Amino acid sequence: MRPAELRGVSVLAAWLLLAGCAATSPAPATAPLPSWQDSAARTRILGFVAAVTDASSPGWAAPADRIAVFDHDGTLIVEKPTLVQEEFLYARVRALAPEHPDWQQQDPFRAVLAGDQAWLEARGRRAMGPLMDAAQADLSQQAFDAEVEAFLAAARDPRFGRPYTQLVYQPMLELIDLLHANAFRVFIVTGGGTEFVREMAEPVYDVPRERVIGSTMKATLRDVDGRPEVWRQPGIRDLNVGRFKALNISSRIGRRPILAVGNSDGDLEMLRFAGDGPGTLAIVLHHDDAEREYVYDDDARRLRVVAAERGWLTVSIAGDFRQVYP
Amino acid sequence: MRPAELRGVSVLAAWLLLAGCAATSPAPATAPLPSWQDSAARTRILGFVAAVTDASSPGWAAPADRIAVFDHDGTLIVEKPTLVQEEFLYARVRALAPEHPDWQQQDPFRAVLAGDQAWLEARGRRAMGPLMDAAQADLSQQAFDAEVEAFLAAARDPRFGRPYTQLVYQPMLELIDLLHANAFRVFIVTGGGTEFVREMAEPVYDVPRERVIGSTMKATLRDVDGRPEVWRQPGIRDLNVGRFKALNISSRIGRRPILAVGNSDGDLEMLRFAGDGPGTLAIVLHHDDAEREYVYDDDARRLRVVAAERGWLTVSIAGDFRQVYP
Repeated sequence: MRPAELRGVSVLAAWLLLAGCAATSPAPATAPLPSWQDSAARTRILGFVAAVTDASSPGWAAPADRIAVFDHDGTLIVEKPTLVQEEFLYARVRALAPEHPDWQQQDPFRAVLAGDQAWLEARGRRAMGPLMDAAQADLSQQAFDAEVEAFLAAARDPRFGRPYTQLVYQPMLELIDLLHANAFRVFIVTGGGTEFVREMAEPVYDVPRERVIGSTMKATLRDVDGRPEVWRQPGIRDLNVGRFKALNISSRIGRRPILAVGNSDGDLEMLRFAGDGPGTLAIVLHHDDAEREYVYDDDARRLRVVAAERGWLTVSIAGDFRQVYP
Repeated sequence: MRPAELRGVSVLAAWLLLAGCAATSPAPATAPLPSWQDSAARTRILGFVAAVTDASSPGWAAPADRIAVFDHDGTLIVEKPTLVQEEFLYARVRALAPEHPDWQQQDPFRAVLAGDQAWLEARGRRAMGPLMDAAQADLSQQAFDAEVEAFLAAARDPRFGRPYTQLVYQPMLELIDLLHANAFRVFIVTGGGTEFVREMAEPVYDVPRERVIGSTMKATLRDVDGRPEVWRQPGIRDLNVGRFKALNISSRIGRRPILAVGNSDGDLEMLRFAGDGPGTLAIVLHHDDAEREYVYDDDARRLRVVAAERGWLTVSIAGDFRQVYP
């Protein structure tokens, strides 16, 4: 066993022992998942981790096999009213607009510059292609990373007045910590852009940059001052949604994960692939808290049916999250 | 600092101290890189690792940035007279031949079944497509992995009479160990098939399966007993050679490596991308030992010119490897 695992096992074992000895007392300060309600969901997650790390349990998994995959938007971070990456796109378009006077009359740029959210919502993803080509391509990967970093530092969500990096779910951060402490390797598997999400991976989620599996744009190499730089090109190379999430997990990780967390129909194949057999856990986050977050499930209809049929764990923000944000 | 790094630093520091105190004595048993000759190449590698892990050195790199990339065929494992994966392909074709009587008359299958190596060499990579489609597709990823594992356990190299997994370069295994002990994350970046090389990654190189970046075939999901399985399809999805090695390193790892090791022109862009700036090291393995390995550099002409121009470290199997195989 690795040191990290030993540490995790002993913390969890100590807590379970304490919890068992003093079931009516409040949980000790070191209890895992403190921002979770003491609900069936939390109990099931802790039971899963306890089984995975108990060599005498039928649910035990060797440390090498402890792979967990998390969707990003709506699973780790608030995705309403607009995806964070869309806000970034819009900010880039506004910043680049003075160099492109034609954009004032040309959709989808006009819609972005005029704040015509209704037009953008009606077009949905079809509006995104030209915006991505204009705002996320024809610059070096290094320059793009710096743009994302600057945006994340400066931008604020209008409803909550917080940086987007603080509109992540504290209970999920604690779940990632618990998994890391128990020798899991955690991957973020997102339909969003790999390089956009990657800028949040280490500072916000403590997930190494190389453990982000997302959508990618085309790229080429260009010599800059005698050294090759990755140069972003227009056009999608890989769209990491639906079945591609499962296929890319296989291709990139080379193991079937034992824990998967998602929130929309785009995560269904990933959850089926990773979290639907013995010794695995599939978790579906349900957005049902209008006061502290948002209420919606229009993009999770199929998912909720399958989750109920298969006995997956549905986590309710209203019912299972004691605290929502850090 | 992580425990692994502390351990590595202290071992290396202790050894450097010992080496400094007793320069004329034989190296102690715990000296790093014991299968390397005590040559300039070894000294340069140890100096690089010492600088990277010394916080007061201009060459220091934070643990998160300690990324090393190794080519596979010819860099970690013998690639002559035939790539190991080609031997696997041929073995699969021979095993499947009874179900395909037409293959006896149909090239490239005929050439494989007749052992017509001259024909296969003359065709080169162009012969590989139909063989790969026939022998590496239309089965589950899980079944493919099992086929590779069985092949690696049973097959023997005719010249050395050893399993291919023991025709890896002991000095490179020691370099990987040294890097791991100093908190590097080591990736194998190969033109070979990701899933083929992956079967060697953990048992042979101690590199986690998810740190193999290689070429891939197409794939789809297929329900088997009610659970989705990855099903390999005919056709190349990604060919990881030349500039794609650099692009895929960027896309997959999200950092520019500081150490890169290769041996052929197909590694040139990777070496330029990763190992050609301040604080980095590019290593080129030169095959110049007919007695213990092979002598060739027909596929490394450009590489050897650039390596000399740029002052990269050329490692000679004849001159720098005290011992070649485990």
